[in-house]
Amino acid sequence: MFSAVPIDRVFIDDQFWAPRLETNRRVTIPMIYERCQESGRIDALRLHWKEGQPNKPHVFWESDVAKWMEAAAYSLRTKPDAELEARLEELISLLTKAQQPDGYLNAYYTVVEPGRRWTNLRDKHELYCAGHLIEAAVAHFEATGQRSFLNVMCRYADYVAAVFGRGTGQKRGYCGHPEIELALVRLFRATGESRYLKMAEYFINERGAKPHYFDEEAIARGEDPAKYWAKTHAYTQSHAPVREQNRAVGHAVRALYLYCGMMDVARETGDKSLLEACGRLWESVYQKQLYVTGGIGPSRENEGFTHDYDLPNDTAYAETCAAIASVFWNHRLLQWRCDSRFGDEMERALYNGVLSGVSMEGDTFFYVNPLEMHAEEVKPDDPYLKAHRMEWFGCACCPPNIARLLASLGQYIYSEGERDVAVHLYVQSHADCRVAGRHVRIRQESEYPWKGRIRITVEAQSGVEFCLRLRIPGWARSRDVAVNGKPTNGNLENGYLALRRKWERGDTVDLILPMPIERVRAHPNVRADFGRVALQRGPVVYCVESIDVGVPVSSLVLPRQSEFLAVYEKQLFGGTTTIRGEAAHATDGDWERELYRADAHALAPVPFKAVPYPVWGNRSATEMAVWLRES
Amino acid sequence: MFSAVPIDRVFIDDQFWAPRLETNRRVTIPMIYERCQESGRIDALRLHWKEGQPNKPHVFWESDVAKWMEAAAYSLRTKPDAELEARLEELISLLTKAQQPDGYLNAYYTVVEPGRRWTNLRDKHELYCAGHLIEAAVAHFEATGQRSFLNVMCRYADYVAAVFGRGTGQKRGYCGHPEIELALVRLFRATGESRYLKMAEYFINERGAKPHYFDEEAIARGEDPAKYWAKTHAYTQSHAPVREQNRAVGHAVRALYLYCGMMDVARETGDKSLLEACGRLWESVYQKQLYVTGGIGPSRENEGFTHDYDLPNDTAYAETCAAIASVFWNHRLLQWRCDSRFGDEMERALYNGVLSGVSMEGDTFFYVNPLEMHAEEVKPDDPYLKAHRMEWFGCACCPPNIARLLASLGQYIYSEGERDVAVHLYVQSHADCRVAGRHVRIRQESEYPWKGRIRITVEAQSGVEFCLRLRIPGWARSRDVAVNGKPTNGNLENGYLALRRKWERGDTVDLILPMPIERVRAHPNVRADFGRVALQRGPVVYCVESIDVGVPVSSLVLPRQSEFLAVYEKQLFGGTTTIRGEAAHATDGDWERELYRADAHALAPVPFKAVPYPVWGNRSATEMAVWLRES
Repeated sequence: MFSAVPIDRVFIDDQFWAPRLETNRRVTIPMIYERCQESGRIDALRLHWKEGQPNKPHVFWESDVAKWMEAAAYSLRTKPDAELEARLEELISLLTKAQQPDGYLNAYYTVVEPGRRWTNLRDKHELYCAGHLIEAAVAHFEATGQRSFLNVMCRYADYVAAVFGRGTGQKRGYCGHPEIELALVRLFRATGESRYLKMAEYFINERGAKPHYFDEEAIARGEDPAKYWAKTHAYTQSHAPVREQNRAVGHAVRALYLYCGMMDVARETGDKSLLEACGRLWESVYQKQLYVTGGIGPSRENEGFTHDYDLPNDTAYAETCAAIASVFWNHRLLQWRCDSRFGDEMERALYNGVLSGVSMEGDTFFYVNPLEMHAEEVKPDDPYLKAHRMEWFGCACCPPNIARLLASLGQYIYSEGERDVAVHLYVQSHADCRVAGRHVRIRQESEYPWKGRIRITVEAQSGVEFCLRLRIPGWARSRDVAVNGKPTNGNLENGYLALRRKWERGDTVDLILPMPIERVRAHPNVRADFGRVALQRGPVVYCVESIDVGVPVSSLVLPRQSEFLAVYEKQLFGGTTTIRGEAAHATDGDWERELYRADAHALAPVPFKAVPYPVWGNRSATEMAVWLRES
Repeated sequence: MFSAVPIDRVFIDDQFWAPRLETNRRVTIPMIYERCQESGRIDALRLHWKEGQPNKPHVFWESDVAKWMEAAAYSLRTKPDAELEARLEELISLLTKAQQPDGYLNAYYTVVEPGRRWTNLRDKHELYCAGHLIEAAVAHFEATGQRSFLNVMCRYADYVAAVFGRGTGQKRGYCGHPEIELALVRLFRATGESRYLKMAEYFINERGAKPHYFDEEAIARGEDPAKYWAKTHAYTQSHAPVREQNRAVGHAVRALYLYCGMMDVARETGDKSLLEACGRLWESVYQKQLYVTGGIGPSRENEGFTHDYDLPNDTAYAETCAAIASVFWNHRLLQWRCDSRFGDEMERALYNGVLSGVSMEGDTFFYVNPLEMHAEEVKPDDPYLKAHRMEWFGCACCPPNIARLLASLGQYIYSEGERDVAVHLYVQSHADCRVAGRHVRIRQESEYPWKGRIRITVEAQSGVEFCLRLRIPGWARSRDVAVNGKPTNGNLENGYLALRRKWERGDTVDLILPMPIERVRAHPNVRADFGRVALQRGPVVYCVESIDVGVPVSSLVLPRQSEFLAVYEKQLFGGTTTIRGEAAHATDGDWERELYRADAHALAPVPFKAVPYPVWGNRSATEMAVWLRES
């Protein structure tokens, strides 16, 4: 068992992430606050809204504010900021006043539909909002040591615990959008109060029980459950008890938040059947339903999963929040078992499908992350699928989600255990770890993800015996390892190089992970990618933007024998490694008026350039493709 | 200028079509009558329906009955059938009684929404239904010489002419679903009454005028025109006056029915600007928006056109009715100019995207004709996209449409002009033509589409001088022609071999069109087909069904050098030429738990077989693909 080294003990100073985190602090977090203010999300907490006024509160508005508060708390924990703190405290004061005498706290059901609390757990996000507020309160407590917000949320949680459960007069409900489960475990960890863990267990265990709560609740509302708009309880992962679920189904963010809650409960209770369910669901997601960018959930219809290997590129939904949830879940799995399968997926999502969600400037966002984009496919009335990032969304879950993830990035890099320190991500930084009852500083130097040379320096006060675990990424075909300059093979345990020794101050480990440009193929059942390759170098997946090649990206062909070069471009987004070479493209010059004919396409050479997927759409390009035809 | 040789002067006795036409007569036409009866479409004409009763009449039900009546009339014209005649006469009697004192005839607005006539021309199909009834009445008149039905429809048309027009007190409307235009020209030709032609001209010319009739009509209904569900008047091709239209847009069947009406009016009036518009629209459809199967209209959202070269295969809508409309339009173009471009498209649609619409047994139908089908993509609640043909549809336009087309197939084969006889389709048959004031019988022998050897025998009473025009299909790379056994080159005029001479009884023309198996490529802008080939032999496009290859069709690869053989299989659907050979497929045996990796796919050889696209889905197969990856 491992624990993440928390953000206040990790100091990132690399060239890749540090500028993004600074942008997050200086641009993203303030602008999300402004958007929340403009859109009425903050005023809603004053409970002054009346019918006929603008900015009618929405059932999930608190979750946006809560995620912003969580991001702000992380930011304050690593860097004091008086203005940010004042804003956060003002929100806490609003929430404190908005809390009802019985502990209930939700603007929508207080001012828009008073008296209708808990009448539609399936669709209305009340407990989901409560979960995000709890996460924010715990983050605030951890950042400041103050219990003001935490106490508010404990009162709310206690009220929720009185309403829901298997006791007489209690509702046997649970939330249509999981989140409260993982939040309650977090609250348990922060307060030590086991009733919150019990509550999380109840929500996990009750899910999918028969008779189905959402059906009974619909009948109570006077609705026909058969006319459920989402058509299936798989949408909310309540089609079956969680321990009987073998396939990841339904809304992707809901699914992965639920799996996070399952892992959290399993970790605290040691429940093997929950762990086994998580294992099966992990295989379903990562072996059958994952985009190469770490995107999850191909369909916009249910914002989620469809059938195995169904991974269309141009219509990929791959919501930013789902990739973020993938980081959350794999991070939890890593604390349970230090296995590179989980670290690899955390890395894949972070460097690709998560980071694509926010612009280099930090002020615009993708909600949907397709792997192919053609200008004419963008429908002007589609609020989410755009060739360019947007400042805000009606459903604005993604911007504050990415803000809180980036503001807490430090915690994803290292884990500590009884006699172990694990390095999951290669980010130049240092971490103050606690291992074998001692403080050990681990310093990491690297130019990752552009270079695969990593130096770890152990700065222990004196000889401390522990196992230093370094993730050997799945994409690495070989490795060179030296301890204090002396080559060693080391043991590979679950994909981590395990270096057990008595570490002395100044001991170094040099890890070299060669980063050739790889042509990645998808499983042949992935129809969308058959006959195509994606280019990957290290953890970074590349894409082609039409601005760089001057021909339609869909007409490109990569000859099997053509060679590519990685070029570090200092001027591009403050330093980015691109892939250069020569490709071919099908010319249409001689086709003119024919749509079909029996002659093969004429191919002409074309200079080729690919850029990292996470930076796409930051220039004026409108066409993009990750998967390219190979000839 | 040419005229089609009508169905009562053409006698088909080939091996390919004759059995299908017999099935149409014996199975399809009777079963559509039964479906119309069961579903209440016939009872609706009795005008007995009252609120609360089942089978509430629908606004376009008359069109289904009318198309059935038209099919029945064609069938009676070529083969008497007392029972069929009795059913047809009973329907005529019902319609006669259903006609209102002022001539109006529509069950929905008589019993469901009385007093609301002509309040929603945009959506409600009243004039569309009138058009189909007129077509049926003309077909009945031509089949029987009786004016009973024709008179009913003339009364209705006269009433329509009083309601609509530019005169004082008239409505300046037109129908959201074109059909009345072509029907009125047909009525003009049958009756000689030029007021019907004038009326057709009015509907064509008024379309798209500003202020927009559909907007004004919506306002009159108390609706906000900006909230039009289809979002754009392009859906009904009324976004601009027809002479200003350059791209085919909107609902595909509506578009092509309109273009038919435009051609009909242009032919009668010699209006050059209409002809020019038709020419531009033809190029838009056939050079930019056509499936290789003759399917038209890729999107289910508008049942129609999207943007140029957008031709996805698995989500192709390609409604059977749109391919049928393509036959109608090209047939009209052919009478105006004997050009193989039009004959080729008529042939492509007929042998592929039209014929796929009905099962070999004649009792089930496709509404949607995708070029790729995977079992898991069929959604159980999608009423139209199925891996197998259906007995009927809620919107049942396709079954009676294909029935009326097949029942009148004879008229598409030959045209006659002042001094010309043209052969558009190679179907073993004979036709009694009128040319140069004389009767000439043209006899055609062939095993088309399986063999490209055609013998034409001219059976004139004595020497008649005329030009025999034989279409040289666009797919033919070469040809051999002999007149009375003597090789000749002949002149090619607009793609037709023009043989001018004084023909004597027994003169023969032998035409040989070699039919190698061709690998067809799509224009490189068609992203869905890039890197893929379709197999075509003669006019027939082939597809692979999983039942024949034993591996997922999407894993197939056709090596560039692999050779294929055409094999005539006597047992398959009563005789079908299939394509055999060897292909490769990507094996998934060694992939097991990986979704992405850097190694190329392992390919294994697999016996290959492709069947004609029109017969797909007639066995137990669920997977199908037209476009196959080439390596």
